[in-house]
Amino acid sequence: MLKGIPVNISPELMKTLMEMGHGDEIVIADGNFPASNLARKLVRADGHSIPELLCSILYFFPLDTFVPAPVTLMQTVNHDEERPPIWDTYNEILSNNNDFSINMEQMERMDFYERAKNAYAIIATSESSLYANIILKKGVI
Amino acid sequence: MLKGIPVNISPELMKTLMEMGHGDEIVIADGNFPASNLARKLVRADGHSIPELLCSILYFFPLDTFVPAPVTLMQTVNHDEERPPIWDTYNEILSNNNDFSINMEQMERMDFYERAKNAYAIIATSESSLYANIILKKGVI
Amino acid sequence: MLKGIPVNISPELMKTLMEMGHGDEIVIADGNFPASNLARKLVRADGHSIPELLCSILYFFPLDTFVPAPVTLMQTVNHDEERPPIWDTYNEILSNNNDFSINMEQMERMDFYERAKNAYAIIATSESSLYANIILKKGVI
Amino acid sequence: MLKGIPVNISPELMKTLMEMGHGDEIVIADGNFPASNLARKLVRADGHSIPELLCSILYFFPLDTFVPAPVTLMQTVNHDEERPPIWDTYNEILSNNNDFSINMEQMERMDFYERAKNAYAIIATSESSLYANIILKKGVI
Amino acid sequence: MLKGIPVNISPELMKTLMEMGHGDEIVIADGNFPASNLARKLVRADGHSIPELLCSILYFFPLDTFVPAPVTLMQTVNHDEERPPIWDTYNEILSNNNDFSINMEQMERMDFYERAKNAYAIIATSESSLYANIILKKGVI
Amino acid sequence: MLKGIPVNISPELMKTLMEMGHGDEIVIADGNFPASNLARKLVRADGHSIPELLCSILYFFPLDTFVPAPVTLMQTVNHDEERPPIWDTYNEILSNNNDFSINMEQMERMDFYERAKNAYAIIATSESSLYANIILKKGVI
Amino acid sequence: MLKGIPVNISPELMKTLMEMGHGDEIVIADGNFPASNLARKLVRADGHSIPELLCSILYFFPLDTFVPAPVTLMQTVNHDEERPPIWDTYNEILSNNNDFSINMEQMERMDFYERAKNAYAIIATSESSLYANIILKKGVI
Amino acid sequence: MLKGIPVNISPELMKTLMEMGHGDEIVIADGNFPASNLARKLVRADGHSIPELLCSILYFFPLDTFVPAPVTLMQTVNHDEERPPIWDTYNEILSNNNDFSINMEQMERMDFYERAKNAYAIIATSESSLYANIILKKGVI
Amino acid sequence: MLKGIPVNISPELMKTLMEMGHGDEIVIADGNFPASNLARKLVRADGHSIPELLCSILYFFPLDTFVPAPVTLMQTVNHDEERPPIWDTYNEILSNNNDFSINMEQMERMDFYERAKNAYAIIATSESSLYANIILKKGVI
Amino acid sequence: MLKGIPVNISPELMKTLMEMGHGDEIVIADGNFPASNLARKLVRADGHSIPELLCSILYFFPLDTFVPAPVTLMQTVNHDEERPPIWDTYNEILSNNNDFSINMEQMERMDFYERAKNAYAIIATSESSLYANIILKKGVI
Repeated sequence: MLKGIPVNISPELMKTLMEMGHGDEIVIADGNFPASNLARKLVRADGHSIPELLCSILYFFPLDTFVPAPVTLMQTVNHDEERPPIWDTYNEILSNNNDFSINMEQMERMDFYERAKNAYAIIATSESSLYANIILKKGVI
Repeated sequence: MLKGIPVNISPELMKTLMEMGHGDEIVIADGNFPASNLARKLVRADGHSIPELLCSILYFFPLDTFVPAPVTLMQTVNHDEERPPIWDTYNEILSNNNDFSINMEQMERMDFYERAKNAYAIIATSESSLYANIILKKGVI
Repeated sequence: MLKGIPVNISPELMKTLMEMGHGDEIVIADGNFPASNLARKLVRADGHSIPELLCSILYFFPLDTFVPAPVTLMQTVNHDEERPPIWDTYNEILSNNNDFSINMEQMERMDFYERAKNAYAIIATSESSLYANIILKKGVI
Repeated sequence: MLKGIPVNISPELMKTLMEMGHGDEIVIADGNFPASNLARKLVRADGHSIPELLCSILYFFPLDTFVPAPVTLMQTVNHDEERPPIWDTYNEILSNNNDFSINMEQMERMDFYERAKNAYAIIATSESSLYANIILKKGVI
Repeated sequence: MLKGIPVNISPELMKTLMEMGHGDEIVIADGNFPASNLARKLVRADGHSIPELLCSILYFFPLDTFVPAPVTLMQTVNHDEERPPIWDTYNEILSNNNDFSINMEQMERMDFYERAKNAYAIIATSESSLYANIILKKGVI
Repeated sequence: MLKGIPVNISPELMKTLMEMGHGDEIVIADGNFPASNLARKLVRADGHSIPELLCSILYFFPLDTFVPAPVTLMQTVNHDEERPPIWDTYNEILSNNNDFSINMEQMERMDFYERAKNAYAIIATSESSLYANIILKKGVI
Repeated sequence: MLKGIPVNISPELMKTLMEMGHGDEIVIADGNFPASNLARKLVRADGHSIPELLCSILYFFPLDTFVPAPVTLMQTVNHDEERPPIWDTYNEILSNNNDFSINMEQMERMDFYERAKNAYAIIATSESSLYANIILKKGVI
Repeated sequence: MLKGIPVNISPELMKTLMEMGHGDEIVIADGNFPASNLARKLVRADGHSIPELLCSILYFFPLDTFVPAPVTLMQTVNHDEERPPIWDTYNEILSNNNDFSINMEQMERMDFYERAKNAYAIIATSESSLYANIILKKGVI
Repeated sequence: MLKGIPVNISPELMKTLMEMGHGDEIVIADGNFPASNLARKLVRADGHSIPELLCSILYFFPLDTFVPAPVTLMQTVNHDEERPPIWDTYNEILSNNNDFSINMEQMERMDFYERAKNAYAIIATSESSLYANIILKKGVI
Repeated sequence: MLKGIPVNISPELMKTLMEMGHGDEIVIADGNFPASNLARKLVRADGHSIPELLCSILYFFPLDTFVPAPVTLMQTVNHDEERPPIWDTYNEILSNNNDFSINMEQMERMDFYERAKNAYAIIATSESSLYANIILKKGVI
């Protein structure tokens, strides 16, 4: 443990976040996501929900301001499904951690999987909410 | 995720618990414990407290009934310190998971470190309570 | 050994089942299957038959309910061959472990091999029945 | 699978048995034995009992005829315990596989552990009988 | 050394033969074959000729009876070359080890190389006869 | 790069600092120190001086308040040498980063080497000042 | 440290520069470059700016005189941006280290990334200037 | 060192030459060749010139007599350049080591690089002559 | 295969013999020797007898002339056993390969094992003669 | 190859020299020295003599001026042997590379071996002179 580093950021996760550069992406995956299968680099966070991790990560992680949407969500499969409540939680966390507005784009499930394969890393959480998977694209400092 | 397996038990931790045999010991260490330094095998559980992990582990893990005390705590350094409150939490968890009484012995800090070096594994949690380190000795089935 | 974990589930197999996510597949292969050749990840279960392993696995493993058939068998080569008796055994095991009906689809031998190459893992058993190979697709919890 | 090789002998176990030389020892350990902790080389045989493995191994494995007892058992802890029934099973298997009489010596539990540490390999079975651990010393051909 | 296992079968070779499944192929290559270059898995047998190894291997190795020819030879480069004498040796060994007739097909040199690249393993012998390379396809038991 | 993390803290160094626990020690070594020889874990910081690294490390790193002196310097070889000026720099940096007084003990050169061998990590800088090596003992949070 | 070797050249960097041959390229990347993601071989130089490293490298490193431009810069995204000031610094360093004129070509950002993927190595600095990434192509001696 | 083995053949180089088979190629590269970048297997011979190594290698290495030219040189870039003098040295060495005439073919620089990528090994010498790179194709014994 | 290298010397064995220096020892072990257990470096030569290997090795390998006996045999256990016939074979091979007389010393079995543990390498043959194990100490060139 | 780096210094050797610190030792060993056996880190320089390497190394390598003799030679075995001529070569090289006088101490053969075991690295040359082994102790810059 170090001063000023949240305890849910493991040493391996911190190292991963630091190594990432402009345009690299990280997936924070829910408990059912095939993370071990798709990840180029896998960081486990068993037993954790996504919102608490997202908070800790955004404390350090600059989002990419060069693209229209530095945050990507997995689209609901049925278009008449209502908006997943966890997306609002994400919105609030993003607003709290950035002094500018952040757009979240949506991506179809299979496309989301392909994108996850190319991400720098995938964090495997135990989040149980539906449509909770989220991709962050790193910006510059 | 699997049916009936608590989400705070990571795949690596489950494998470790299964590989252990009669008399092997596992340390559940708090956030300040030098776990990475002392561990023969290290299992990280960053961001987690010990009581929740202890519950999940004891659901599967048989304690050794061949020894006077299958559970070991780190002794308070000053003998006039009052009993750490987390020990009572442990007591309650142990009672809930076993239908017989479990003794918890105490061990001086430096001896505790030596014993941790020989343990089969050390779990590095982020528990912040004082005197929260705990060693479990595995029994038979 | 742990309380509540069948002894024919090895630590490595349990870890593998836990790491799999939604849509990942596992092949339980018979004794003549070229498992070592095709597997991305190989889990050996020498000396075991498939039905006993299938029972133990399904105790933990959720099948995918998002697809028409979460279970795949290798098609008999000659269409006039009679239905392999072990398929009925599988049917019964699947019914006992799920409270909803499970469809088993059939796949031509060479296609089955290609699919096995992409599976998350292959379990190499010593099952001696004909047409006993079986693929399970993991669902969500 | 090969012609004439029992299916409960895994490729890794066969390789191990072949590599051993005169005087090298192998432990066939029961399900509660701390095999993973003590083994210089670990061979897993989850889900198997010892007698069936012993039969298959002795089909290939020459016992050492240069020592008084090429087979070692773990002594019962209380001397008034009756002789473990599985020892008679072992006796019968040993007689069936050798055309000369084989002595089985007994060794105190802690000494047995020390000896297991120096063995060439330990096979981790799921045998549930008491006092079932057995050490074989390899002879010459 | 084990009872009943020929001494020219190394532990690594035995493990390899056991791991192979239905349809997997093994190349027994002569001393000039680019084995180290082409092999996915290389098993060295320096100083050995092919016929003696072939005998030992066929004692355990079932040939594939599902294909027209489970044995493949490298075609002579000039069609007017006479039949390499070692092929008759192979024929005799194959007859002695199987109670049914085994066909040996021939394959052009460059095609043979491509096939060797996909074989499960290549055994590098020191055989000095011309056109002595031979591929065996594994069958079922 | 992350928000709030100094750029002279490499990802590997941050991971190392996070993994350390109560009582673990880290050596910040000058350019002539035999760091590669003595280190259990080596972290290179070529081209950097020690004071700038010390500042960045102390921003995160809690010093041990359970011991008389959580900071150790290498004693001057000749006792009549004057106090190395860099020690005053260290004193100032330590004061700026802690709101309580920090004692720095001195240790004879060969003893210092022995202690460095047991440290959790050694950072190899290019510091050119004399007697600049410094050991930090980690405290609790 | 060695006589005549600048301290900001780490042992690993020197080894890398020595291993490179005619036509091989090295990228000196700024602090936001996705170096860890793109590099075939990554050399970290956290906390360092590019000009100081460039000076030290060019002291040893011959530039390719067989191509029109042995140095490549990342083009400004908006063509009306003014010339990045660090390019002049580079120009001066290149002039000081070579007794012939060196051309610097510019490359569009995405093309630059593709080229970086094929480079022999990428050095990850903490340079904070805009458009500071630079590729050097090695010449002959 | 062994009797009859030249001292400029390192153990690793001898092992490499022995492992090569009919048709496999080895590149003896000059000091500026991008050997480390292109080599599937790299053998370093820093400080050595090519002619002395070529002599030692040809003492053991049979050239391929099945192809028109078992030796390949890198073509001069300008066709009006005169024949590089080291080629005559090579010619003489080849004549001294073989009792039949050896043809040396020439290959354009970029094609030569592609071929080097597929060679079994590349030896990185410090040869300073121009156009000194040479490829040998192994024959049979 | 190379010109002038016997085919029973594998690439790995040749490399090993070349790496050895003055005073280093190699054990040529019979088929029952616990070679895999005792060897710091193991070289397998399954299916081979010792005399043929000894011949090939001595063609290259200088024996140590600085010690009374550069060759060591394992003493017969019973002193009234007659001299093992293979020793005379060794004597003859040694005479044929050296133009000076070579002494062979004998060493008690357990001492021989200890010495084998410290040898540079052990060659595991399938020699079936009694008391055939032999140690060679390397000399200078 | 780099400007100003002698070609007989391999990339690995340069990296090794740079990593060494004050008091670390490197052995430059002759062709018969048991370098591979004794070395903690082995750097091969097959085909090279020691004087040429010594020259190149001393161009960069500072000798330790804190000890009476930073250079150690292996004592002649017979005290009446005359001084090995290569020692005078070493003396001259040392004088040419340092502007102060360097003492060379002598050490008995077995002690020399023990010291070599603890050296940071051993360079295995093919030097054929007697008593040519030499140890250098690194100083400070």
